[in-house]
Amino acid sequence: METLSQDDAFARSAPMVYTVVTSVDEQGKPNALGVSWVTRTSFEPFLMLISIDHSRYSHEGIRKNREFVINYPAPDHMSGAWVCGTTSGRNSDKTKTSGLTFIKSEKVRPPTIDGAAVAIECQVISEFETGDHTIFVGKVVATRGNPLDERHLYVTAQFQLFPLDNTFEESVP
Amino acid sequence: METLSQDDAFARSAPMVYTVVTSVDEQGKPNALGVSWVTRTSFEPFLMLISIDHSRYSHEGIRKNREFVINYPAPDHMSGAWVCGTTSGRNSDKTKTSGLTFIKSEKVRPPTIDGAAVAIECQVISEFETGDHTIFVGKVVATRGNPLDERHLYVTAQFQLFPLDNTFEESVP
Repeated sequence: METLSQDDAFARSAPMVYTVVTSVDEQGKPNALGVSWVTRTSFEPFLMLISIDHSRYSHEGIRKNREFVINYPAPDHMSGAWVCGTTSGRNSDKTKTSGLTFIKSEKVRPPTIDGAAVAIECQVISEFETGDHTIFVGKVVATRGNPLDERHLYVTAQFQLFPLDNTFEESVP
Repeated sequence: METLSQDDAFARSAPMVYTVVTSVDEQGKPNALGVSWVTRTSFEPFLMLISIDHSRYSHEGIRKNREFVINYPAPDHMSGAWVCGTTSGRNSDKTKTSGLTFIKSEKVRPPTIDGAAVAIECQVISEFETGDHTIFVGKVVATRGNPLDERHLYVTAQFQLFPLDNTFEESVP
């Protein structure tokens, strides 16, 4: 075991799942942000968490409107998902610039990415400060997706996106 | 977009990274738990979070001793990592039953898995309840790993473990 720099250790812990989190701002304008710091955090009730940088435009919207959708983009969403992760919605409308199609969600105001492998609609039940991010914990209120193709995107430490299958031959036990 | 059951939606959001979190109990006995609900949660300071089921033996140890190590197991750790994810340390010693080799960590009492691709040593700075789990937020105090091989394990919804490379040809932009 050798000492690694913190940056190198984090890079080597990749790839990470790559989601696009949708939200709405105070005026109801939708936004879409690339988020990899996401995980489930309770079985019963079904809770998900996202960790959002204080500086992100989506941070304001989620804090005020208390809703978000975690979209797991399909392989053919790759370019649009990348736009969501590399531009700010503060001065642009990523529902237009990304080239992705956004549709009405079932239970929340933020939209869903049409054709997402999975879309998990959440209502914020609590939030916690952690350094330069806020953890938003969301109760899952609706779940949709594409039952025919569950492939979605992951991101490497070199900021490469790639699709990954969900099943593999190599396994234990 | 079709409605998915909550279980199906969660399954389709896999694969997830598969880590082995080490901790010590009140008597100083080390334990090792398979954990996929893990993510970074702050750049500065470098903070990681793990989400641990209340019923897990490791939950007691982390709550009391306030330290853990997130180990990203190497491909040849697969069988041992699986033992850590499927048996309880309450009545066994997984540092022996897993067949993995545990070595002293640099800054914390929980041990490190020898040969892990990455090992991130953490001191708990806060904890939050979320349903049936607790989020433990850890300040990163040491980072080690294997600089020659960063491949580590992921788990599918069917509980298959598999190793994944960190670099891919397909990417954007």
